[in-house]
Amino acid sequence: MSRSTSIRSISSITSETMTKTNHVLPTIADVWAAADKIYSVVSETPLVESPAVAKLVNAESVGLKLELLQPTGSFKVRGATNTILSLSDEERARGVITFSTGNHGRAVSYVANQVGVKAVVCLSKRVPAYRVEAIKALGGTPVVHGNSQDEAEDRYRELKEEQGLVPVVPFDDPRVVAGQGTISLEILSQNPDVDTLLVPLSGGGLLAGMAMAIKSLKPSVRVVGISIVRSPAMLESLKIGRPADIEEKDTLADSLLGGIGRENHYTLELVRRYVDEHILVDEEDIEKGMQYLFHNHGLVAEGAASVGIAALLSGKIEVKGRNVVMPLTGRNVSMATYLSVIQKGVDV
Amino acid sequence: MSRSTSIRSISSITSETMTKTNHVLPTIADVWAAADKIYSVVSETPLVESPAVAKLVNAESVGLKLELLQPTGSFKVRGATNTILSLSDEERARGVITFSTGNHGRAVSYVANQVGVKAVVCLSKRVPAYRVEAIKALGGTPVVHGNSQDEAEDRYRELKEEQGLVPVVPFDDPRVVAGQGTISLEILSQNPDVDTLLVPLSGGGLLAGMAMAIKSLKPSVRVVGISIVRSPAMLESLKIGRPADIEEKDTLADSLLGGIGRENHYTLELVRRYVDEHILVDEEDIEKGMQYLFHNHGLVAEGAASVGIAALLSGKIEVKGRNVVMPLTGRNVSMATYLSVIQKGVDV
Repeated sequence: MSRSTSIRSISSITSETMTKTNHVLPTIADVWAAADKIYSVVSETPLVESPAVAKLVNAESVGLKLELLQPTGSFKVRGATNTILSLSDEERARGVITFSTGNHGRAVSYVANQVGVKAVVCLSKRVPAYRVEAIKALGGTPVVHGNSQDEAEDRYRELKEEQGLVPVVPFDDPRVVAGQGTISLEILSQNPDVDTLLVPLSGGGLLAGMAMAIKSLKPSVRVVGISIVRSPAMLESLKIGRPADIEEKDTLADSLLGGIGRENHYTLELVRRYVDEHILVDEEDIEKGMQYLFHNHGLVAEGAASVGIAALLSGKIEVKGRNVVMPLTGRNVSMATYLSVIQKGVDV
Repeated sequence: MSRSTSIRSISSITSETMTKTNHVLPTIADVWAAADKIYSVVSETPLVESPAVAKLVNAESVGLKLELLQPTGSFKVRGATNTILSLSDEERARGVITFSTGNHGRAVSYVANQVGVKAVVCLSKRVPAYRVEAIKALGGTPVVHGNSQDEAEDRYRELKEEQGLVPVVPFDDPRVVAGQGTISLEILSQNPDVDTLLVPLSGGGLLAGMAMAIKSLKPSVRVVGISIVRSPAMLESLKIGRPADIEEKDTLADSLLGGIGRENHYTLELVRRYVDEHILVDEEDIEKGMQYLFHNHGLVAEGAASVGIAALLSGKIEVKGRNVVMPLTGRNVSMATYLSVIQKGVDV
């Protein structure tokens, strides 16, 4: 069995014993409503062509949707904005809380600050100081507690109760999913010929939103989720029909680490319904994607944002003659890590 | 006299004894004609907002025009495309020639290849191998000759005569000026409120084209040229009213090195007529500009492309309440140089 066959066969992994969700899934109407709401805070990002990549993989076109140009450097502002702007006045007055140390925490801090809502972000003592500073600089209130992410999450639960703060979760929320789905609306207006979407997959908020939105408007679009070998939580969950526990390993695509939540109500079912295919990329693929975007496009993409290019360059997906679009999801990466990846390709 | 006063006083340097050109200067009609021609090869680039910079300098808005996303990584494709597509069939059949080792040579190689014209690029033996390879990869024919840029230029003149190749010059040509001017058309359509343009200045093709185009359509826009302390050829020429010889020094903005040509017919006069103000930036400013664009926007900008941000961050220009736009002109920089600049700000 060839490598590409083995990869494509992941398409058929969905379990027959899938646990059905009792929650009302978001629809394209929610995405339109999000689009009416978010552009006071969120940017409509450019879709730029990469003729060089298109030529390499024999695609008709390859478009890069530059979500890394969003105010906080990632697409996460879309879902965070839609969620925070959907709160009641009473909820806004109480303030919001989250425990993400990465792009979601940055987004919540920024959006809350922009609309005059207090945002608490719980972090463990092991989070690097520059990340704590970034949360502060964006207008959030970091609360540093405990020696692990779990202890920070305990503190998050306590503060939520004690202070009545409103949780803003990173992916398994219809408002977040609908917010991320606005990327597909922009893509369809920027390139109506799009026929293939390559979307990074971790908790599934981005993929669920983009897939549901584009399939609702142009069902012929092929939607491909890209997971990382070192943390394929959604793929394992699809296989067993419920949220899977997985062992996590260090990865360049650290924004894609993490499970899909023990009580996943939305993204697992949406991904099962709307995604056509799944691909896995490894660390070497991701490194090549990051290098390619730096050297050939002058774009600083974090590992998680490079998985689409990684999938194409690795030959793990066939896109001959197709009009491919992928979001470059973010640019927030430790500079030390980034430079160590980029330096490998120094040309002089 | 404060630093900012001394800088602003450059505005009034134009010599009263300016040598008048006998050549017909390009007009906005030529820019419109270029816009009708070039988009089969050239990209319309995104204009993205930088609220962070705007806040830092109290501007109403700061827009970055991402010319570094052009196919060859710089705005130079605009002028090269307009020139090559303006050639007669007979001239196209002969082929074109240039001796630039940088962004212009890359652009000519790429554009000629796209439209099926032969392009010879003369380079000296001292040009790094990767630059020779880049010319080849883009479809140009490198001719390596002599131990200096002057000897390569001698070979260029010989080949031009011997083989009847048509020269495509880097800046002092009405077709090049008109091609670069299309950037201003895009800016006006993307942000009609623009009231200030910050434009890198070396030979003046970009500044002349952008200034002439925008002043023709919206005369109230303030146009600021940004030169580098280490190679202020146009400023010295404006002072004496004719092309000045200047001593060149190594700089991070190496794309801005070089004189304006001993027999300048167009750009000196256009810059004199249409540019309101001049600013000088030094190496430290440029370094900070490059670092800022990398760390805050995820954009790889070469030194020459960073002078606008450099001018703002250094406080050398007052833009309070203004709607500023600047082209980020290119991303072609030696990786060794680039990494040495970026590494100074490593955060982890």
